[in-house]
Amino acid sequence: MAGLFISFEGIDGSGKSTQARLLAEALRALGHDVTLTREPGGSPGAEEIRRLVLEGAADRWSAETEILLFTAARRDHVEKTIRPALARGDVVISDRFADSTRIFQGITRGDLSATVDTLHDLMIGLEPDLTLLFDLDPAEGLARATARAGAEMRFEDMGLAFQTRARSGFLALAERHSRFRVIDGARAPQVVAADTLALATAALGGH
Amino acid sequence: MAGLFISFEGIDGSGKSTQARLLAEALRALGHDVTLTREPGGSPGAEEIRRLVLEGAADRWSAETEILLFTAARRDHVEKTIRPALARGDVVISDRFADSTRIFQGITRGDLSATVDTLHDLMIGLEPDLTLLFDLDPAEGLARATARAGAEMRFEDMGLAFQTRARSGFLALAERHSRFRVIDGARAPQVVAADTLALATAALGGH
Repeated sequence: MAGLFISFEGIDGSGKSTQARLLAEALRALGHDVTLTREPGGSPGAEEIRRLVLEGAADRWSAETEILLFTAARRDHVEKTIRPALARGDVVISDRFADSTRIFQGITRGDLSATVDTLHDLMIGLEPDLTLLFDLDPAEGLARATARAGAEMRFEDMGLAFQTRARSGFLALAERHSRFRVIDGARAPQVVAADTLALATAALGGH
Repeated sequence: MAGLFISFEGIDGSGKSTQARLLAEALRALGHDVTLTREPGGSPGAEEIRRLVLEGAADRWSAETEILLFTAARRDHVEKTIRPALARGDVVISDRFADSTRIFQGITRGDLSATVDTLHDLMIGLEPDLTLLFDLDPAEGLARATARAGAEMRFEDMGLAFQTRARSGFLALAERHSRFRVIDGARAPQVVAADTLALATAALGGH
C-alpha cells in the first residue's frame, strides 16, 4: 500500500481529536490527499456499531462483548475506509485505533490484553505506520472532557482512576512499539500542532 | 452447572423453531423448568445486535464482520441468559447456537472455519450437551421458509445452492461431534416432536 496510516491515541480530553483535524488541514494545504476518520466508527456500518456500544448504561456490555463489538466495527472500518484510502495513496489519520481497545477494554476492566491481541491478530492484522500519543495529566484531561459536555460521556463517566490507569497503559504501549511518538498534550494547541505536523512530515519523507 | 443445554440446528425451513417450541411445552408439562431462547439474539443486547446484522442488504457486512457480530451477540446471550438459566438447573433450548455460525459464516462464504473455531474457543467456550440437527432436503426447506414470508429473509435470499452447502456442512459437523443427533425433518411435525422429546428425555435421564 502506498499511503501512510497515522493513528491518534490518548485519554479523553488529551486534545487528539482537535489535533487530528488540524493535521488533516495542514497536510491538505501541503497538497496531500488525506482521509480523516475515527474509531469506533469511520464507516457507515461501524458508526452503527458505535451507537450500539456508546449509548446506554456503562455496564450494559461486558468487557469481552465490547471487545468483540469494537473489533467488528474495526474490521468494517478497515475494509471499507482505511484499506481503500491507503490503496489510493492517501494519508489516513484515525482518531483512535486498536490501541484504544488494548487500553480501554484490555487493561482498565481486568486483564484482557491477551484476548484483545489475539483477536486483533486474527481479525484485523493491520497496525498504523505511526501512532501519535497525546499525553496529559488525567485530572486536566477529565476537566477538559467534562467541560465539553458531549453526548457520549460513556468513558468519561468512568472517572479519574480509570483515566489514570489508561494513561499508564498508553505510555507502557508506547515503550513497547517503535511506531509510537509521545507528544506533550499540556501545551497550547498551536504548539502541539507544530510538533504533530513535524512528526507526520518526517514520516511522509521516510515513507 | 446442573441444567441441560440443548441446541436446535438445521437449514431454514427445517422445522427446528416449531420443534423447539413443542419440546419446551412438552418438557414443561413433565414438570421441568425450561428456558426457550434463540440465536442470533436471546438477550436484550444480543437482540439489538441481531437487528443490526439481519436488517439491510445481504452483502452489507463481510463474512468476517458478521462472525464478529454474531460472536458478540453470543457472548452476551451466554452471559445474560444461558449460563444463569443453567445455574438455576433449567433445561435451556436454543433455536440455533454456535454451529449456525460455523456453517453460515464459516463454510458457505469461503472457508472461514478455522477463524470461527478460534473465536469460539477464545470468547465463548461453551458447547451444548445435546445438539439436535433437523435434516431436510433444501428444496423442501426453502419452499417452507419462503411460504412463511417472514420479515427476515436475509439468509433465505441466498438460495438453494447456499442451503445445499449448509445442509452438507451440518451433516459433516454431526459426524464429527458426539453431542449431535440427526432427526429426519421431512416427516409430520407430531412424529418429529415425539423423536425430539425421546432424545431430550434420554439426555435428561443420563444427566
